[in-house]
This record gives sequence, C-alpha cells and structure tokens, in this order.
Amino acid sequence: MTITIYDLAGAEADHRFSPFCWRSKMALAHKGLAVETVPWRFTEKDRLPQPNAGRVPVIVDGERIVHDSTAIADYLEERYPDRPLLFGGASGRTLTRFVQNWTETVLQTGLIRLVVLDIHRHCALQDQAYFRRSREARFGTTLEDIVRDRDARLPAFRASLDPLRRTLERQDFVSGSAPAYADYVVFAAFQWARAISDFELLATGDPIGAWRGRMLDLFDGLAGRAPAYAIECFDFEQRVASHPERCDGDLS
Amino acid sequence: MTITIYDLAGAEADHRFSPFCWRSKMALAHKGLAVETVPWRFTEKDRLPQPNAGRVPVIVDGERIVHDSTAIADYLEERYPDRPLLFGGASGRTLTRFVQNWTETVLQTGLIRLVVLDIHRHCALQDQAYFRRSREARFGTTLEDIVRDRDARLPAFRASLDPLRRTLERQDFVSGSAPAYADYVVFAAFQWARAISDFELLATGDPIGAWRGRMLDLFDGLAGRAPAYAIECFDFEQRVASHPERCDGDLS
Repeated sequence: MTITIYDLAGAEADHRFSPFCWRSKMALAHKGLAVETVPWRFTEKDRLPQPNAGRVPVIVDGERIVHDSTAIADYLEERYPDRPLLFGGASGRTLTRFVQNWTETVLQTGLIRLVVLDIHRHCALQDQAYFRRSREARFGTTLEDIVRDRDARLPAFRASLDPLRRTLERQDFVSGSAPAYADYVVFAAFQWARAISDFELLATGDPIGAWRGRMLDLFDGLAGRAPAYAIECFDFEQRVASHPERCDGDLS
Repeated sequence: MTITIYDLAGAEADHRFSPFCWRSKMALAHKGLAVETVPWRFTEKDRLPQPNAGRVPVIVDGERIVHDSTAIADYLEERYPDRPLLFGGASGRTLTRFVQNWTETVLQTGLIRLVVLDIHRHCALQDQAYFRRSREARFGTTLEDIVRDRDARLPAFRASLDPLRRTLERQDFVSGSAPAYADYVVFAAFQWARAISDFELLATGDPIGAWRGRMLDLFDGLAGRAPAYAIECFDFEQRVASHPERCDGDLS
C-alpha cells in the first residue's frame, strides 16, 4: 500500500525544502516503501489530515496518521521491522537522538544565521512581511544584520561541524558503513540549505562534502534530483524569476 | 581472572585523573570485571607492558595486552559479550563514535582552555617547565593568557554543551534509560576536570549536573569516591600543599 506524505512545497510543486520532511522522505526510501508526496504550503492548514498542528511532515499509512518526523521514524521502524532498519536496535535509536540534538542545536542553528535572508528572498510575496516580523523578533535584529557578516562567521560555522567532520573522516556514513536515520537527520539540514541558498557552506575537499554527495546519490538520486541551487542553480533562478510568489519553508 | 589497568596517577597514588583511563575504568566496572589498577606516572614509560606508545590506559587480561581506550572498549565488548553491553550492537557502537568525536572536538577542547593553568598548578615541579613549554607552543600564547578571560568565555562553553544538555533533558543517560559507553566517554572528561580544578563548569540546575551526579554514584561510587575538588576540595588542597611534587595528566 502506498504511504502518503504531506511535504512542504514552494510556489512550484516540485520544490521541496523542509528539513523535517526530508528526514521522513529519506526514511521512507530507506524502508523501500511506496510513497506518494502531496505538495503542501504552510498556509494550507485545512488540507492536512485532522487533527493537526499545522506542521509537516504528516504521513497517512492506511488508517494510521502520524505527525512529526521523529514519531514517523519510530512508527516506520516498529511497523516495518522486516525492512532495512533505521536505527539498528534500541541503542542505535537512543544514540541517534544525540545526533539529532546536535543537528538541531548546532547545525540548524548555525545554518539559519547564514541563510535566513535567502529564505526571505524565496518567500511568497504575501508571506514576506510575516517572515521578516517573526524572525526579526526571534533574533532581535534585522534579517540583513543577521547575515551581514556571514562571510566572517563562516570559519566558525565550519569549525562547529568538527564532530561530524571527524566522524566522516573515519567512516563513510554517520551510521557506519551504510546510511541510516542519523545520516538522514543531518543530511536533511544540508538539503534544506541547498534548496534555498547558493552560499558555499563547505570548503573544497571537506569530507562532509563528499558524504553529502553520497547522500544525494542514494535511492536513485532522490535528494540529488530535487530542484536546488547546487545542482541546477540557473534553472532554479529562472523559475524564481518567473514565479515571484514563492512560498516559505517550515522553519519555525 | 583479574584484569590489570595501568592508570595515570598524581604524586599521590590514589589521585587518578586521565579522562582516557576513566573511560576504561567505567567500562570495566560496567562489565563487572575484577580489576587491579596500577598507578603510573607519565615519566614511567619503562613500567608499561612492552611495546607501548608511552600512553595509558593499557590493560592486561591474561596474555592479552590492549592499548588505547577505544581499542579497550572494543576488546571488552567482544571478549565478554555475555556481560552487560557497552554499545548494544553495531549501530550503537558506530553512533557512540559520534558522541566520542563530539567529546574530543568540543567538550575536551573547551575544557582545556578553562583549566589548563589548573593542570600546570598540579604538575610535578620537574614537569612544570615541560608542560608550560609544550602547551604554550600548541596554543600560541601563555597559559595565563589562555585562561585569563575564562569567566567571560564560560557562557559560550556552557552553550557548546547544548547537544548534551538537550539529550539529558529528555532521558536519564546519553545511552537512554541506563548508562553505557557513550556516557562513560562524556563523563570521563568531566571527571578529569573535577580532579584538577575547582572552576564551576556548570550552572546550578543544569541537567548535565544531575547526570554527572548519577554517573558519580555508579558502581558503588567508583568515580564519586575518587579524590577530586568537588567532593573533597579541602582535603585535596591539603594534600597538594603537603605534596608539591604532583604529576601531570595524560592530556596530549
């Protein structure tokens, strides 16, 4: 049976950039499950299965509705234990949480301060005022000020990735010789940035970049084929120019 | 059969502060193995089993000699699979490496910049010149300059612990509901700092502090009973005063 996933989309339906949705899409592909993605915009709360918290991802698997990327990963592992494992047991699941907590407190927190103005630039026109107001309140300064010195802050951001870098210097994936959910959580943050910004996050030769390439290639290029800057910057820019009413991401 | 572990000691034989040795001692206790610790000073290269790299921990288990805390943990898990597991499987082992890489690139790197002068203060008199010369070359400045603004840098250090803090807000141990090797790796860094410095690393009420307390209590207080500042500061200070020839730690 095909699983439905509600997936944040831009103004164009094939532009998907929520890091939380990417976690779940990679997890579904890891399990080899048939998937139908439903493009969803964050102003379309009423189109999600009820009840909902107005956030994606949400999956519908037969009669089961599961919200939240972490709950979805847990659900898939328990419902489909005969398919490739996302965690590889209780210890793997618990330690994956540390990787997730690192991703959310270090990686995603660092990324937003580099690309928040790029997000604003991609917002639908009717969302830009909301986005600016809410984010400037959160950071206590203007979007322009947040990113003004991002070139100067880039070395510190790159240094903050040392735990990931050292891991990938020594093994092909965060999860070892093959990817698993810990990889998908980290990768989803990079995939989000890649979708909305051409800012060069990684230095040439960084082992994190090689790993990102391996991740883009997984599952017949599921992530690599997705519209994004690094791969089809020119086409993407053209589409933005022809569709100024672009939509915001699930960044709150 | 009793396993022997060569364990870095201070001028007094009961003062043990190598973080790498603490990893292994906690792992041996986790396995419930009988252990004899041999106090060892870093100038006593010839007293280690041959050949050696002049570093501890080293364990001797019958005819097997194992160097390096990571190799020791792997050895114990493979040699004693019927005893409580340190990793809980291949996934747990691999993801523990991420926790270890975080510990070594963030936690230990941050700690040394807060307490390096405390270490020097505890060095044996004949080691102080070596310690100062090697560390000042590594950091490119004097020991006094490294720690001069440590009070101002303390908030950033505490913030760098966010991945650990968020994890321990949600579960009792890094490894879940019970401690395992990932906990020992992180804890060993705190135990090292606690042995040589009275600098308050954690704010009151930090969930990391509560976890550290649980770790100190494990195995009949194996770590909590060890001489250190937080628990018996006054006695320790008295011993330092009466034994000025204190020894350095395995910090390189």
